[in-house]
Amino acid sequence: MTTTTTTATAPATAPTPAERRSAELEQQLAQDPAPFRVLTGDRPTGPLHLGHYFGTLRNRVRLQDLGVDVFVLIADYQVLTDRDTAERLGEYTDGLLLDYLALGIDPARSTVFNHSAVPALNQLLLPFLSLVSVAELGRNPTVKDEIAHSRQSAVSGLMYTYPAHQAADILFCKGNVVPVGQDQLPHLELTRTIARRFNERYGHLFPEPDALLSSAPLLLGTDGTKMSKSRANSIPLGATADETARLIRGATTDADRHITYDPDIRPGVSSLVLLAALCLERDPHEVAAEIGDGGAAALKRTVTDAVNSHLAPFRARRAEYATDPAYVRSVLRAGNERADALAEATLEEVREAMGTFR
Amino acid sequence: MTTTTTTATAPATAPTPAERRSAELEQQLAQDPAPFRVLTGDRPTGPLHLGHYFGTLRNRVRLQDLGVDVFVLIADYQVLTDRDTAERLGEYTDGLLLDYLALGIDPARSTVFNHSAVPALNQLLLPFLSLVSVAELGRNPTVKDEIAHSRQSAVSGLMYTYPAHQAADILFCKGNVVPVGQDQLPHLELTRTIARRFNERYGHLFPEPDALLSSAPLLLGTDGTKMSKSRANSIPLGATADETARLIRGATTDADRHITYDPDIRPGVSSLVLLAALCLERDPHEVAAEIGDGGAAALKRTVTDAVNSHLAPFRARRAEYATDPAYVRSVLRAGNERADALAEATLEEVREAMGTFR
Repeated sequence: MTTTTTTATAPATAPTPAERRSAELEQQLAQDPAPFRVLTGDRPTGPLHLGHYFGTLRNRVRLQDLGVDVFVLIADYQVLTDRDTAERLGEYTDGLLLDYLALGIDPARSTVFNHSAVPALNQLLLPFLSLVSVAELGRNPTVKDEIAHSRQSAVSGLMYTYPAHQAADILFCKGNVVPVGQDQLPHLELTRTIARRFNERYGHLFPEPDALLSSAPLLLGTDGTKMSKSRANSIPLGATADETARLIRGATTDADRHITYDPDIRPGVSSLVLLAALCLERDPHEVAAEIGDGGAAALKRTVTDAVNSHLAPFRARRAEYATDPAYVRSVLRAGNERADALAEATLEEVREAMGTFR
Repeated sequence: MTTTTTTATAPATAPTPAERRSAELEQQLAQDPAPFRVLTGDRPTGPLHLGHYFGTLRNRVRLQDLGVDVFVLIADYQVLTDRDTAERLGEYTDGLLLDYLALGIDPARSTVFNHSAVPALNQLLLPFLSLVSVAELGRNPTVKDEIAHSRQSAVSGLMYTYPAHQAADILFCKGNVVPVGQDQLPHLELTRTIARRFNERYGHLFPEPDALLSSAPLLLGTDGTKMSKSRANSIPLGATADETARLIRGATTDADRHITYDPDIRPGVSSLVLLAALCLERDPHEVAAEIGDGGAAALKRTVTDAVNSHLAPFRARRAEYATDPAYVRSVLRAGNERADALAEATLEEVREAMGTFR
């Protein structure tokens, strides 16, 4: 994320230790990427959208292009609780692969793999679960959220153990950098705890991975709430130019014809301005000033043009890859083979350290 | 367990559905063992003892000799919570292998394998965890017991998810018969639930395994409480004749010199009588009558002679196998290879059914 940091409001408070560590890490990555391995990924619950694009996807390509070893996980076992999603797993996985390739994830340099294909990674869940208590799993904010939003009894065993599974995702390849938002820091903290406890009990084997905090811009959905795959308020990366125009036309704005960039007071309008600014790589205040009294209609035309122009090369590449599904799947297969070999090697070290044998 | 059913007190109540099903199953196993696959096993937490021998180990050999396909799991991942045990995993696993071979488990017909060596089995934990709720996991009696005995916060994630891991143990090889005591029926019920839910959601793949209820005799430890690896009150199968004599000499009895078989009133004395009777394949009342007024000393001599004679051939075989540790480990390696191939095949069917791909 090189272009958007100027658009974020500068923090009024001193940087937290996590922010300081992350900034330090950015410098190290730029100076010498060789010692770093990044684990990142997506749950295949639907099409990726512009929020993902500006929030995380571009950052992965940036890290790859810096020379960092990037692992991209398609977390197909972490969507099973949702029956509808489970039924469309193949379709969503194919969509993610197209998005990654079109964005510039290069299979020769980065590794794309999925949970269901790497048994030795999943096996690590077992020793890792022995290192955390039920109470620690339950304290995880995502799990707590899920419990608050459903009845406790409806939370699956898979959701509850998710933070330990995530530790396996990161540690199987000895990932030492994980790009996260502030809200995901507690997840990573549990991974660090598991790595530390394993090392203490069985001898040093795992890094304690660091968080690379992203300065993701807050893009709202077309209904003015958080953009989310599950709320049907997002603009999918794979949408056509016409679909994109239609989705932006339907976005929530307000009655004030004079367009300004003021996220706190005018969230809907400002999110559209920000979206145009991100696509144009310009300052959102300038973009708003140019539209001036043009009202919502002019704003939406500007945004539509900006998004469609910005995404045109991406969409052309995506359409081209879509004509060759065999190649697209071969990318995943090759990634799985690399991930599997790494996971087997790590598991062998784990067996050695723990004194189990085969 | 062909010789001990006569020593058990006949149940005063009508057989439960589980008991009826189990008796039916015994008949089917005797008539045509081919359609059946049994999953059984041990946690490597210490040496196996006489309680295991008469309770479950002999039954496995009996089933194998009937022609049933028997899988014996060394559950080396289910002992990790206990630090002391984890440190002696290799030693305990070697001990179990020696016991199995000396008892007559035949690697040409039965499959001995361990958790840590079969990643595809462990991977099944993930989809299975998606099919059960946290509340269902917490209702398991063993887990509840563990929570009651420790602080809730000290229960590990591994212990909490243990019933789902057990479902993976049984279903990876499509085991359809599981020898259990009455107290373990709820475990098996969760495995049946997982199999049913998987089949309903993704298409029929797994059997709903049946319980083969064992009529295990209640042997107490040398201190008059339940014989247990963790209470240092057991007589290990691997003990020498002298060690066995010493352990039996130290067993708790009572002040009445007249020896009788009366488990409710004289548990310590009666358990010793029962142990002798099991070894001699005789009725415990007869054994007690023969000792008569000989007192605890005569009783203990009788028990020691009976145990040492009964176990002599077992111990000779065990000592012989112990001289060839390379062979003993090769048995586990071959079993792991067979288990791994089966687990991979099942996992491939699971991937197919769920629409994940590699």
